[in-house]
Amino acid sequence: MNPGSSAIGVDLGGTFIKAARITASGTIEAQTRRPTHPESGPEGIADSIAEMARELNDGSGLAGLGIGVPGVTTAEGVVVIAPNLDWHHIPFKQILQNRIDLPVAIDNDANVAALAEARAGVGKGCNTLCFLTLGTGIGGAVVLNGQIHHGASHSAGEIGHMCVLPGGPQCGCGNLGCLEALTSGPAMVRLVQKGLEEGQKSTVSSDLTPEAICNAAAGGDSLCTETVQQVGGYLGIAIANLINVLSPDVIAIGGGISAAGNTLMHPILESTREHTLEGLFEHTQIVLATLGNDAGSLGAAFLVLSI
Amino acid sequence: MNPGSSAIGVDLGGTFIKAARITASGTIEAQTRRPTHPESGPEGIADSIAEMARELNDGSGLAGLGIGVPGVTTAEGVVVIAPNLDWHHIPFKQILQNRIDLPVAIDNDANVAALAEARAGVGKGCNTLCFLTLGTGIGGAVVLNGQIHHGASHSAGEIGHMCVLPGGPQCGCGNLGCLEALTSGPAMVRLVQKGLEEGQKSTVSSDLTPEAICNAAAGGDSLCTETVQQVGGYLGIAIANLINVLSPDVIAIGGGISAAGNTLMHPILESTREHTLEGLFEHTQIVLATLGNDAGSLGAAFLVLSI
Repeated sequence: MNPGSSAIGVDLGGTFIKAARITASGTIEAQTRRPTHPESGPEGIADSIAEMARELNDGSGLAGLGIGVPGVTTAEGVVVIAPNLDWHHIPFKQILQNRIDLPVAIDNDANVAALAEARAGVGKGCNTLCFLTLGTGIGGAVVLNGQIHHGASHSAGEIGHMCVLPGGPQCGCGNLGCLEALTSGPAMVRLVQKGLEEGQKSTVSSDLTPEAICNAAAGGDSLCTETVQQVGGYLGIAIANLINVLSPDVIAIGGGISAAGNTLMHPILESTREHTLEGLFEHTQIVLATLGNDAGSLGAAFLVLSI
Repeated sequence: MNPGSSAIGVDLGGTFIKAARITASGTIEAQTRRPTHPESGPEGIADSIAEMARELNDGSGLAGLGIGVPGVTTAEGVVVIAPNLDWHHIPFKQILQNRIDLPVAIDNDANVAALAEARAGVGKGCNTLCFLTLGTGIGGAVVLNGQIHHGASHSAGEIGHMCVLPGGPQCGCGNLGCLEALTSGPAMVRLVQKGLEEGQKSTVSSDLTPEAICNAAAGGDSLCTETVQQVGGYLGIAIANLINVLSPDVIAIGGGISAAGNTLMHPILESTREHTLEGLFEHTQIVLATLGNDAGSLGAAFLVLSI
């Protein structure tokens, strides 16, 4: 094997650190994981990652180590904020680089997952891909010509904060009517709770989760069906806006809630078609992401592997 | 002068054809114009353009002829629809090429104006630029790395058909709540007419035009001020969405209504700031386009001149 044809990809989450040795074509050669222990702080976590990198290094030559972090990063590799780790302005690229004798690259977790889908997943071979992750928040990313689009602020791809309902519910970011405020897991749960409080009948009642709501909708529950239709409707508006502006080859949808599959995809596609200018809809594939839990480490490795 | 360092740029409008000989750096060396005579059809118009190109050709060698048309074009140079010319599926690139012994390139008029602003206007030297034209319709375009972004459908950049008010007024495209349905010149006039019908007082009354409305707003008229605030508010939502997704270096605003300057720019900027995720707003310049009537021929020439 030529030196530099593989790389270490690290997926740093709030609960686990996952790391893998990955080839340029996206094959996982070896992998390992450890609990994150956020309380050990950036230095402790960097020590763990350096040890995992040594475990995975088979001596055949590595192109570098890439890492996806659950937060906002700068071009210089500073983590501006990572709520799940309680990090603020941590120069994590430098902290890692001090421990690792390989080129280090760092980016946001949604960006690296999008890069993975664009190079080795549903968008393989495409030019332009937009990525949405549906979960506790709505993450987003834009990949142009096989590269993450960071834009002037280095923070492009904030699809979750697209305004899709002026004057709508307040988002965690403080603005009104963001996609995230209308379609995240907690938003979905709030909609069903409100219906229950208003006396609507439903097969779900306690222990409300987005998964339970999607399952009940798939089973014909009317309150949950209505909720999933509404959430899919707003997601479709945001996706239609992406198509009207960028006409991407692929829009990939990942994240926990995307596991609902067709229950959610059907209203998404219906609304997208309704809000897209004639002649554009059929040129974009709107599909579920396929790499699942591997997207994070794969995309992180691609940060240091050229196409 | 080296052969190929200048080109002919043609701005085909519903009333006039404007053509100019333009250098790669964007200097207009010579220009001419004629009435369009739409009734002469694509062949008659192509004859006129070929004559204008001969007039402008000083024999020093030209890189080609580029043309911007007021309609939807395909990658193959077919004009799918150009309402002001009553054209449907006209292979106009080929019709021109049959008459002109230079490479011919064709694109949509908003796209070529955006290219002009990105290479020689307000976006000179920038990486990513979004362009809006405010007029009878709302045109849009996206320039990435100095090139027009056409996307999978060849029709990207339809910013005017971004949905900014779900269930809002019907747009000419048939969809509800498009930016164009809420902020075009005719939409602005409808808003004031509605206010007048409801008995609101205003200094404008007959001969309503977007220009008269903006002037009255600048003069303190309350109905017109309210209207301009509302229009600027929706434009700001669309611009904020562009920033959240693409974080462009520059958003340039052109077209007839943009002549209202600060009267309109103030509410646009206020709404954009309100709807943009924290940390992104200050990285994008939101500015009036500067090339005015020359943008069409300049950008058309840039279609055949490399950077």
